[in-house]
Amino acid sequence: MNTIEFWFDFGSNYSYLSIMRTQRIRRLAADAGVRVVLKPFLLGPIFKAQGWETSPFVLQAAKGRYVWRDMERQCAKYGLRWRQPSVFPRNGLLAARVALHGEGAAWEFDFCEQVMLANFADDREIGDEAVIRAILAGLGVDSDPIVAAARGDACKAGLRARTAAAQSRGIFGAPTFFVGDEMFWGNDRLEDALALAGR
Amino acid sequence: MNTIEFWFDFGSNYSYLSIMRTQRIRRLAADAGVRVVLKPFLLGPIFKAQGWETSPFVLQAAKGRYVWRDMERQCAKYGLRWRQPSVFPRNGLLAARVALHGEGAAWEFDFCEQVMLANFADDREIGDEAVIRAILAGLGVDSDPIVAAARGDACKAGLRARTAAAQSRGIFGAPTFFVGDEMFWGNDRLEDALALAGR
Repeated sequence: MNTIEFWFDFGSNYSYLSIMRTQRIRRLAADAGVRVVLKPFLLGPIFKAQGWETSPFVLQAAKGRYVWRDMERQCAKYGLRWRQPSVFPRNGLLAARVALHGEGAAWEFDFCEQVMLANFADDREIGDEAVIRAILAGLGVDSDPIVAAARGDACKAGLRARTAAAQSRGIFGAPTFFVGDEMFWGNDRLEDALALAGR
Repeated sequence: MNTIEFWFDFGSNYSYLSIMRTQRIRRLAADAGVRVVLKPFLLGPIFKAQGWETSPFVLQAAKGRYVWRDMERQCAKYGLRWRQPSVFPRNGLLAARVALHGEGAAWEFDFCEQVMLANFADDREIGDEAVIRAILAGLGVDSDPIVAAARGDACKAGLRARTAAAQSRGIFGAPTFFVGDEMFWGNDRLEDALALAGR
């Protein structure tokens, strides 16, 4: 079975589009014999290595203005809920550690979707532990051991290694998809990546 | 009849994709009652205002590496010829002045297509007057009066005003499409822009 790796950051608005579409596409992908593997990572260190202290959508005013209008239109096109976050980019550190810990768990994809909806549809602070706990509880899982593991050394080291791997593979933004060594950047390339994986 | 404005720079590789697709789409657009209006401008001053001395594809190494692979794949997808330019970004100043002078002329769209092919399919130096003259001659028009006009004060002032207009309208990259006040950035938004214009 071919695999498509989906690298994303919970603070990235275009990753929100892809996460929501991936939930829908997973069934289609399964029919086409394609497995979607989630790879949460942190964009912050990658931006810092580029000399940027925050998102380019903040640093470049004209692009930033455009992006929020583009998101409105894209969400309308895909039938997704959308509210511009009052804080951007939000800190996805805890969510990423939880997602990393949840790899392969039944709640993995749903957790990622709910965190994205919290950030980009409900304008909630996904950096707050209480928000992350409420999302896990909503999925019917006990948040205590999960949050404890996410705050443990193994998860911390795992996320650092994941982000280092993103950088060494040439990732410079999110979402980024890999099919083998072929890299596709941006939600607009999701179909191309799926087409290649399905071949 | 609705209008879609297509703002582009002759040195911009993603503008190449849109120019080639626009030639094909023009007939479809005409059927849908949509008129495509070309708006050549210069990205250089817009990048400079951002503090960049050249294209972000040069300034950001990882993104640059990705872009050339992406172009190969995109050109294959659209059935377009492609050769990575040995000089990037090329200076589109003279070509933009000629295109500005040619607005509404029968050769306007074909000239833009041929300049883009010279740059991105045949790796020719579009900053050379001889290359521009050969393209005009190939289209069966007398290049002498056109190049003379392109080098005249009116064309120079016209292109400066055009680039200032791009900046004041919030353009930060190319290609950019406008349908009324709705701005769409990137070749990946051409279909969305056409859909809005065709409504």
